[in-house]
Amino acid sequence: MIDFKVIHKSKKSNARIGILRTPHGEIETPSFVGVATQAVVKTLTAKEVEETKSQILISNTFHLHLKPGEDFLKKAGGIHKFMNWNKPLMTDSGGFQVFSLGFGRDHGVGKILKEKSDLKVTTKNKPKNVKITEDGVFFRSPKDGQKLFIGPKESIKIQEAIGADIMFAFDECTSPVADYYYTKRSLEKTHRWAQICLDSKTTDQALYGIVQGGKFENLRTESAKYIGSLPFDGFGIGGEFGDEKRTMSDMLALTLPHLLYEKPVHLLGIGHLEDIPEIMKSGVDTFDCIVPTHYARHGVAFTSEGRMDMRKSKYLSDPLPLDEKCPCLTCITYKRNYITHLFKADEITALRLLTFHNLYYFNSYVESLREEIKKNAL
Amino acid sequence: MIDFKVIHKSKKSNARIGILRTPHGEIETPSFVGVATQAVVKTLTAKEVEETKSQILISNTFHLHLKPGEDFLKKAGGIHKFMNWNKPLMTDSGGFQVFSLGFGRDHGVGKILKEKSDLKVTTKNKPKNVKITEDGVFFRSPKDGQKLFIGPKESIKIQEAIGADIMFAFDECTSPVADYYYTKRSLEKTHRWAQICLDSKTTDQALYGIVQGGKFENLRTESAKYIGSLPFDGFGIGGEFGDEKRTMSDMLALTLPHLLYEKPVHLLGIGHLEDIPEIMKSGVDTFDCIVPTHYARHGVAFTSEGRMDMRKSKYLSDPLPLDEKCPCLTCITYKRNYITHLFKADEITALRLLTFHNLYYFNSYVESLREEIKKNAL
Repeated sequence: MIDFKVIHKSKKSNARIGILRTPHGEIETPSFVGVATQAVVKTLTAKEVEETKSQILISNTFHLHLKPGEDFLKKAGGIHKFMNWNKPLMTDSGGFQVFSLGFGRDHGVGKILKEKSDLKVTTKNKPKNVKITEDGVFFRSPKDGQKLFIGPKESIKIQEAIGADIMFAFDECTSPVADYYYTKRSLEKTHRWAQICLDSKTTDQALYGIVQGGKFENLRTESAKYIGSLPFDGFGIGGEFGDEKRTMSDMLALTLPHLLYEKPVHLLGIGHLEDIPEIMKSGVDTFDCIVPTHYARHGVAFTSEGRMDMRKSKYLSDPLPLDEKCPCLTCITYKRNYITHLFKADEITALRLLTFHNLYYFNSYVESLREEIKKNAL
Repeated sequence: MIDFKVIHKSKKSNARIGILRTPHGEIETPSFVGVATQAVVKTLTAKEVEETKSQILISNTFHLHLKPGEDFLKKAGGIHKFMNWNKPLMTDSGGFQVFSLGFGRDHGVGKILKEKSDLKVTTKNKPKNVKITEDGVFFRSPKDGQKLFIGPKESIKIQEAIGADIMFAFDECTSPVADYYYTKRSLEKTHRWAQICLDSKTTDQALYGIVQGGKFENLRTESAKYIGSLPFDGFGIGGEFGDEKRTMSDMLALTLPHLLYEKPVHLLGIGHLEDIPEIMKSGVDTFDCIVPTHYARHGVAFTSEGRMDMRKSKYLSDPLPLDEKCPCLTCITYKRNYITHLFKADEITALRLLTFHNLYYFNSYVESLREEIKKNAL
């Protein structure tokens, strides 16, 4: 059960300040949602995640279903107790991971297209590693090759056992290379599944519906209208918008008006630093992204001086704090020379120090933008 | 500059309680010395290492020479400042690593012989990957294949630039499969190098000489007498004693009497949990070992219930703390089910949680044995 209230609307954009109340406390929105795929923010402890000003996390239904399995989580008293995180938590539906097993393997593409691709996914050129039926998706476990099935009912059942505050409806997240007709047919299925998810729910956990439609404007509008008409507790906006940044703003602009103003909106899996102001200006309330944590493990720090690749040798003789303007534990404790040494020496501690800083930096940035909204400056 | 005082001698054994004062504070001995090979206790931050009751650490001259290089450490203000560790610190001489590049590669053996070996190292069957001369050792950098040289003078120069409180003399740590004549000739060289190290020293850092002699009793005695006669600030006991636990106690019993009672004695690289009482009873003051940290990264927890392999599936449904009797941060925060999940999911956080606990457990165990010595019960 959640409760959402908009407490301020910017005079300059659609940005809004809200309070989202959940059984594990309330958060101020717009908020960045840290990614705890396997019930842990990689490299950190739950206490440290709190110290990075993280208000809410999102875990991954697909991964938790495979390891350790939702039964273990249920027996452990639910995911909050299991991972020692006593603040709000979401689980995605698992749809993205199941489908990317297919498209990702066939075409070597993930959610973020690094380069333009000539690949096309059509109704005839379907993914080979997954079999999509009217009821859901058959796939092979990447853990042990076992044949598995997840559909809307199964996803809700798994998410209920996991026990997050907010669940997402099971959807087909189409590949960035899917064509119009594939995307249209997929969307119809996602819409049918949305109703099944609502009907399957047995707990008072919140359930968000997901707007899909790929990069096609009329499908996005259609999806927003339909999903927005269903009695969800909030709405997710999923999938791929296309390559250009402008497209994201345009897509959000034509989606948000069809969703109830009083309900919270979550943007799934997008949140590069440069995207964040646009995301917030569109009226989105929460958004998750692996960028701060993923990049940290690859040596990239986000700082007030811009991106820094801490694997570069030049920092070995740099005695400055990672970010002189940042008051986080990493920045007040360690210097660039040491962090770079740890990366070059393949020391795990390096990954922790950057993960901590990057999360703190993202959360602080979002916090500063919230202040801008309050002043009607964003 | 260090200062050492024995403040209590057990009535039951040669165990003793001492205070070792260094420029970075004092420690109570006997003390376990945590291993910070590359200027970091793997997976932890310096603050956490303090929280595990660690009093003193040992870093690795060979590794720090390769990465980042002692010049960087010197420019960074020395190793303490570099790694943010403000307590006592030792550096080993680099000898063990240089020589194990040769013997280790040739024979696939490390310091600890897991199984009995028929291999023999003789004066004719020398290691191939290193070239040992009267002046030191030529070897190829495992980092980039570059030809490098370390001898006693170079080792002291590197250790002075690193800037630990306590340095060790450069020695040849003979392989466990070295024969008598090889070991005898090696020992003569180690003894000549000991004097060169003393003569080369230019700072007021403390310098420990190292007693070698392999598994041969008369060589151990000879080495203890000779090294014990030199004006070192303390003594290290190095090398391999042979396979059996009894051998270690016997070797220590015939070595320690030849070293000045007033000077601190360090046992290099030995400290399995079951060895610790014997080590302390022999009169050793400090000893370092990778066991708690290395085993942690391989899933093994040392607990009041014995060793636990946390990679085992049975713990996925075990809701107990890692060690019910342990008050460390890991044990008061996380349960076995979660730790095992993290190991099975290849999550780095798992390595941290066990490393923290194991170090805390070893240090607490040594602390409890110190209390036994004070009561003349050990």
